[in-house]
Amino acid sequence: MLKGIYTPIVTPFKENGDIDYESMDFNLEKWIQTDLDGLVVLGSNGEFAYLSQEEKLELATHVIMKVDKRKKIIVGTGCESTRETIKFSNQAAQAGADAVLVLPPHYYKKSMNDEVFFAYFTEVANNIDVPLMIYNMPGNTGVNLTSSVIARLSKNKNIIGIKDTSGDIIQIGEMLRDVDKDFVVFAGSAGYLLPALCLGAKGATLALANILPEDCCRLVQLYHENKLAEARELQLKMIEINKLVTGVYGIPGLKVGLDQKGYKGGLPRKPLLPLEQSKKEVLLKTLEEYDQQSSWVQEAFQTSSDH
Amino acid sequence: MLKGIYTPIVTPFKENGDIDYESMDFNLEKWIQTDLDGLVVLGSNGEFAYLSQEEKLELATHVIMKVDKRKKIIVGTGCESTRETIKFSNQAAQAGADAVLVLPPHYYKKSMNDEVFFAYFTEVANNIDVPLMIYNMPGNTGVNLTSSVIARLSKNKNIIGIKDTSGDIIQIGEMLRDVDKDFVVFAGSAGYLLPALCLGAKGATLALANILPEDCCRLVQLYHENKLAEARELQLKMIEINKLVTGVYGIPGLKVGLDQKGYKGGLPRKPLLPLEQSKKEVLLKTLEEYDQQSSWVQEAFQTSSDH
Amino acid sequence: MLKGIYTPIVTPFKENGDIDYESMDFNLEKWIQTDLDGLVVLGSNGEFAYLSQEEKLELATHVIMKVDKRKKIIVGTGCESTRETIKFSNQAAQAGADAVLVLPPHYYKKSMNDEVFFAYFTEVANNIDVPLMIYNMPGNTGVNLTSSVIARLSKNKNIIGIKDTSGDIIQIGEMLRDVDKDFVVFAGSAGYLLPALCLGAKGATLALANILPEDCCRLVQLYHENKLAEARELQLKMIEINKLVTGVYGIPGLKVGLDQKGYKGGLPRKPLLPLEQSKKEVLLKTLEEYDQQSSWVQEAFQTSSDH
Amino acid sequence: MLKGIYTPIVTPFKENGDIDYESMDFNLEKWIQTDLDGLVVLGSNGEFAYLSQEEKLELATHVIMKVDKRKKIIVGTGCESTRETIKFSNQAAQAGADAVLVLPPHYYKKSMNDEVFFAYFTEVANNIDVPLMIYNMPGNTGVNLTSSVIARLSKNKNIIGIKDTSGDIIQIGEMLRDVDKDFVVFAGSAGYLLPALCLGAKGATLALANILPEDCCRLVQLYHENKLAEARELQLKMIEINKLVTGVYGIPGLKVGLDQKGYKGGLPRKPLLPLEQSKKEVLLKTLEEYDQQSSWVQEAFQTSSDH
Repeated sequence: MLKGIYTPIVTPFKENGDIDYESMDFNLEKWIQTDLDGLVVLGSNGEFAYLSQEEKLELATHVIMKVDKRKKIIVGTGCESTRETIKFSNQAAQAGADAVLVLPPHYYKKSMNDEVFFAYFTEVANNIDVPLMIYNMPGNTGVNLTSSVIARLSKNKNIIGIKDTSGDIIQIGEMLRDVDKDFVVFAGSAGYLLPALCLGAKGATLALANILPEDCCRLVQLYHENKLAEARELQLKMIEINKLVTGVYGIPGLKVGLDQKGYKGGLPRKPLLPLEQSKKEVLLKTLEEYDQQSSWVQEAFQTSSDH
Repeated sequence: MLKGIYTPIVTPFKENGDIDYESMDFNLEKWIQTDLDGLVVLGSNGEFAYLSQEEKLELATHVIMKVDKRKKIIVGTGCESTRETIKFSNQAAQAGADAVLVLPPHYYKKSMNDEVFFAYFTEVANNIDVPLMIYNMPGNTGVNLTSSVIARLSKNKNIIGIKDTSGDIIQIGEMLRDVDKDFVVFAGSAGYLLPALCLGAKGATLALANILPEDCCRLVQLYHENKLAEARELQLKMIEINKLVTGVYGIPGLKVGLDQKGYKGGLPRKPLLPLEQSKKEVLLKTLEEYDQQSSWVQEAFQTSSDH
Repeated sequence: MLKGIYTPIVTPFKENGDIDYESMDFNLEKWIQTDLDGLVVLGSNGEFAYLSQEEKLELATHVIMKVDKRKKIIVGTGCESTRETIKFSNQAAQAGADAVLVLPPHYYKKSMNDEVFFAYFTEVANNIDVPLMIYNMPGNTGVNLTSSVIARLSKNKNIIGIKDTSGDIIQIGEMLRDVDKDFVVFAGSAGYLLPALCLGAKGATLALANILPEDCCRLVQLYHENKLAEARELQLKMIEINKLVTGVYGIPGLKVGLDQKGYKGGLPRKPLLPLEQSKKEVLLKTLEEYDQQSSWVQEAFQTSSDH
Repeated sequence: MLKGIYTPIVTPFKENGDIDYESMDFNLEKWIQTDLDGLVVLGSNGEFAYLSQEEKLELATHVIMKVDKRKKIIVGTGCESTRETIKFSNQAAQAGADAVLVLPPHYYKKSMNDEVFFAYFTEVANNIDVPLMIYNMPGNTGVNLTSSVIARLSKNKNIIGIKDTSGDIIQIGEMLRDVDKDFVVFAGSAGYLLPALCLGAKGATLALANILPEDCCRLVQLYHENKLAEARELQLKMIEINKLVTGVYGIPGLKVGLDQKGYKGGLPRKPLLPLEQSKKEVLLKTLEEYDQQSSWVQEAFQTSSDH
């Protein structure tokens, strides 16, 4: 069963737009040194949508081999068609993925409904040799997986969990209430990690953990140690920087944050444009303020522990 | 400073559509016997939108006198125009309201923005003799009050808090991070009461507390006693019945729930239609299941208390 | 049967926020000199939402008496409750309104549906002594009246038409296809007047006609004279200025436009704020460009008339 | 310059999910016999999203060769990344495409804006050997191309037009007002073909033209012959069947319609599910009623021709 903090790793690119494997390896070694429970390769923040099918398989294979079981690896394998998703998931399984993370099909939005989603995830799960985690990401896909269809899918023994990035805390509550007991619910954003944990989430897959892996892990630990006041303080502090590196400035912002934190972020692949200078300054200032508050909070943690 | 659980009380009507003060008084005496911290009269669930200005003042005055300080009373006084809101808020103040709950103006949606909201709430707060609580209710108004404008308004010493019914848990987090320390943030729905408390909310105004006042109060108590596991169980259990008596079946559903729970709910005022028989059955069944689970949970509470 | 161009007249206010009847009378005399088929008092652009019930009746009565049958007068009488709408519509009838324009109830959005709307408009129509025109205004109300419920309501002999401000040209087509033959469909914005006419609309109620009444009437005339090329040119030219005085700058913008065109617009009532200087300049420049193009177009009309 | 009616042809599949080239060829020969101005291969209705990159190139090449210049062929080549779109567009050019139809990138919705779209379409257009038509399809992509960015892009001499499926008739008007004179605007749905023509659209790309090619062409002809009354009647008649085979029942519905009309529609590729029996009956009944009305309308056309 999955638990703890995973991060959907970014994909560094060279100036000519090719994948920069050297920078990727550099980052991998750093993430491996952290408390992260695992890595997601080819998640949304990995710019999977901009990679060709060949690049995707090559990249996943590369990461799995480099990490070499030092962290769990989940591979994003969702394609629009059922047959492509099955094919690619099995390729990822063969490459050694611990699980696959599968987006719902979403291009034909008006034709997508619970029935289509149930049939899709069931057929995929029943035809692949690796555990499947569902990936609900309405902000990018424009479709939402309801708690009702997730409850039904949770009974399939090869479907082990969901990463819910809807931000709908009531929906997360409904899932936690209704899913099979071995099925895990992961928060999909650091903006509501503590609320999700309070409702019973077992972990999270967080873009923010690319640049602040230890703080994300610490929040989970504080929660499990029943240090709610500290957990709350950390949670509230995380919201702003998380907002910048996910929604507001997106992947270009996240990559600037990586550069600042000693990782190799670099440029996004086109059509994404590099972060403008003015936005970059806001981001770096927010990150600096975060770090300053952070030290203060850490000190505070050592002296008090009230609820 | 406000805290704890308030309920926005429903308004019973006679068959001819007039306000049924006898049923209102019956309900008031029952709510007064509960642990509720206070009542909101002329909230959304009180069908304020269907009352004439004369009826609204008469009803608020009646409730304040009947309750006679046995519970705190907040009166919903938001009108579309600044001048009407000021006038009615002062009438409510004179009638003895402990605070007023003020919706943002919202009819001309495209012209509503932070600047308009800031000017509106500031002018109202500065011209009334009673503390003002802001009422963010995007589901009904179609406009949202951002955490940024709320943070600015929280500095006005006559604006004491906000009831946020947006359901956006990140926004609630931002508000709790940014508002003045004496400004309270109340959850606006029982669907996310525990998550809001975990982030620092001081209380809530809950439609569900019309019919399940003690359970709503108990959840707050469990949280403050650091009994997170029990609080979580109660929270998850509440989601479904709350969904029915708020969003799905609305006020007609809430009134059926009241009838079932020994209060006098009765019919909504037109154009609202009474709940159809088939929906009524679903609601009553859900309520019955809730009560059965509830006894089980209560017993469980007496024997275990693990985090 | 209604036809042609109506304008929803603005309500001028004095500096202290009271209704400025002197300016209103000035404007009325100017509009009466135009080719407009009629006026709508207490429409959205009349800031009806910011007037008390007493002010609304007084204003409607005043306008009806002043106009004294020189133009048709439709009065906006929609309230949230069925009983209030009936009462106010009958008061408007008694004051001499030619028809009433009735918004759907909309505050409790989740409870509003075709069944509620059908019952509401049917009960209102059956209890008032004046023809009823339905007012679909999703941009302000957040609810939409479907072509299906409009088709059903069109069979009620006291419901004579609809002003559809949805901007959904397919929905307008569906209404025109399905309604009773004596039921009129009016476009609700100058942005799609020609497309609506091409589909069979009999007229329109246009905010833009406050400041450009003759051009709005001319477009209808060009269409009826089968001068499509000229009609198209005029339509395309109208879109930008219309956008500014409706959606983008709203009523404050429309009032600036009135001042510029020799009417008395003045300030909006609070919470609406006066148009900022920078926006005012954009608006006046757009209006000036419109007028320049306009003379050019008018000349062109006199020499060519190709399809 | 493009003009007239194009249809985005469906892709027939065998029971095992492979492309059914035999059925495709059968359909092609039928469409070639019609008055259609051209075909779009790999449009949304061609289920391009469910084809692998290899299948897409193979299919486009096949269609171009089979049609052999008897109709113009536009190939849908939009991918998420700039580099993939350029590569595939050049492959389509080499295969003989008359133009390519390019969707905006859309997966990372929050990062998509006018600047990104302008850079994307400019870079693609400047690096391909075939004219580019922009494909605005908010219903599927969740992003909208504004009239402002389209006006700027219309100045690029290799960007020849736009298919706008937004359904926003004001936006279509703005585009027609602002684009370069050689840039064509095509309606993207039969639901608003006549309104778009009235505003100056030069043609349309219509899913409905898969099954009713002649009627779609006839509407354009009636418009150009200035027979507005007949054009209107045909337009209103088309709305319902168009709604079923596009939004409501989607591609599975369109394929049922093809089967009914003597083409080979067959099954959609999974995850799309075949149309349920009850929906199939509604669709066939609607189509039958359409045909009956149609003969009546055709007769009417022969006797009257009033405006």
